[in-house]
Amino acid sequence: MKSYKELYSLVEQKIQQLNFDKHPKELFEPISYMLSLGGKRLRPVLVLMAADLFGEDIENAVSAALAVEVFHNFTLVHDDIMDRSDIRRGKPTVHKKWDQTVAILAGDLMMIKATDILCETKTSDLKNLISIFNKAAAEVCEGQQIDMNYEKRNDVSVGEYLEMITLKTAVLLGCSLNLGAAIAKANASDMKNIYEFGKNIGVAFQIQDDILDSFGEGEKVGKKIGGDIATNKKTLLLIRAFELADASTKNDLQKLIEEDAKNVDEKINAVLKIYEKVNVRKEAELLKEKYLATAFSHLDKISVDDSRKEILRNTANELMQRMS
Amino acid sequence: MKSYKELYSLVEQKIQQLNFDKHPKELFEPISYMLSLGGKRLRPVLVLMAADLFGEDIENAVSAALAVEVFHNFTLVHDDIMDRSDIRRGKPTVHKKWDQTVAILAGDLMMIKATDILCETKTSDLKNLISIFNKAAAEVCEGQQIDMNYEKRNDVSVGEYLEMITLKTAVLLGCSLNLGAAIAKANASDMKNIYEFGKNIGVAFQIQDDILDSFGEGEKVGKKIGGDIATNKKTLLLIRAFELADASTKNDLQKLIEEDAKNVDEKINAVLKIYEKVNVRKEAELLKEKYLATAFSHLDKISVDDSRKEILRNTANELMQRMS
Repeated sequence: MKSYKELYSLVEQKIQQLNFDKHPKELFEPISYMLSLGGKRLRPVLVLMAADLFGEDIENAVSAALAVEVFHNFTLVHDDIMDRSDIRRGKPTVHKKWDQTVAILAGDLMMIKATDILCETKTSDLKNLISIFNKAAAEVCEGQQIDMNYEKRNDVSVGEYLEMITLKTAVLLGCSLNLGAAIAKANASDMKNIYEFGKNIGVAFQIQDDILDSFGEGEKVGKKIGGDIATNKKTLLLIRAFELADASTKNDLQKLIEEDAKNVDEKINAVLKIYEKVNVRKEAELLKEKYLATAFSHLDKISVDDSRKEILRNTANELMQRMS
Repeated sequence: MKSYKELYSLVEQKIQQLNFDKHPKELFEPISYMLSLGGKRLRPVLVLMAADLFGEDIENAVSAALAVEVFHNFTLVHDDIMDRSDIRRGKPTVHKKWDQTVAILAGDLMMIKATDILCETKTSDLKNLISIFNKAAAEVCEGQQIDMNYEKRNDVSVGEYLEMITLKTAVLLGCSLNLGAAIAKANASDMKNIYEFGKNIGVAFQIQDDILDSFGEGEKVGKKIGGDIATNKKTLLLIRAFELADASTKNDLQKLIEEDAKNVDEKINAVLKIYEKVNVRKEAELLKEKYLATAFSHLDKISVDDSRKEILRNTANELMQRMS
């Protein structure tokens, strides 16, 4: 079994070999730029890990791995427009560095290229691969729209929140593993279990992300603490804090969110105090552990030797720890 | 051979049967809305005509036809954002009726759904169909970006203009015919010729569009005369007028374009006078006829009985006349 590091290196090398050097440059430069910004390359690595798990030559899964990474970056380019984000991985976002038109079109083209790259896979069932890919792709769009809807609502429930992050973030991890497994011709039961492993890990990651934004150590996380609080993002912590708080605390929290904060740091500190008071971190940690446990129970059920599964188990654990 | 009217009715009926009634409604309602706005349904009809031409049961080409129509409408949703257009077919555009986020995401989802629908085609060579489809899809994005680039330039040549409209408009007509032909297992030479027929007809249509915007009868065309002039659009007429004009006339034209017009109707009339003076309409008509002739020469070369080609010839001629 190849290590994360080995698979990551392979993905990086193959991304650099992608040839987007075409006319007009306004469209292809942003694509190369976006793909060069790096990141964990988690999704393509998962495609390769799943192929490896079921005994397939990982070279046969490289196209699917790249397709998922190009698709993921397409969603980031369009999300950054919608979220009005100026910075991505420490560099200007595409719509900032170029303009909105370029960002819309470069994103569109990345989506098209992702399917093209996926079609390069040597497989007897291309229709199935595209179906797995497109189902997740559609769900990611749906999740992003639901997230946008929540910006305007104050009554989002934990259940609704979990549905949103499942669609927006988690299904693509399940899809990545499923693509690798499908290329390796895994059976239906293994396909289902590895998908559920990925999806549940994805939900746990997102909950972890929410926790770290409020309780992480800024430098380790790589971004300022309290960003979600500053922008009134409907995170698990905020939603759960409203549910757990007594009437008076709820009132205080509502005011903090509704009022235009004169001092953002004061606002963050005040909200964090409420989070601590209602012990919302503990709640979130428990929910995260629940999803992790569900993920591992699905991994256990997969019909390959346990020793081959270690890499996926370790990857999940290391990623959760690296971020904490 | 089925008539345009029959194929149009079939397309309309199948579009109404498309089921986008899903959650969240903010994403699926705009898709249904956009597809209900009507239009000539030229592209899907061309898919079916090509299948019919080569003796295929048109039912087998319906999915490809719908895929092209959904893709075309995706490009319209995103183009309307970039062009800041508020009205499409007499109704508010998606980003006006909802908002920009909805328009970006609904467009993204339409692109994904287009591929999904294409994959429903019963075929032994899905990879080929997707390749034909994605090549045109990528070129349409490139054409739109080049068009956006031209907005900022004053030295666009006729050759560059023709490249742009070929990519932005014409290749999708060639692609539509090619999909129908591929489903009917047409040979390589016929595939090439029917593609060139569609592409050249597409260029002729766009030139016709440019001519009508300046010289059409407003009510027949369905939009106000001079819209392109009012917005300084780099049409064939404007580009060619600059090339044909003497130094003094060129100067007048430049001023009309650079200055903020106090009275738009006066500006339109002044530019139209220059167009008449340099006889640019005649030039454009000749170029249009050249592309039409090239298109028909490719149609002639297709290895099926001439009588079967009449429907494509008539469709091209009728569309050119209906718009004049």
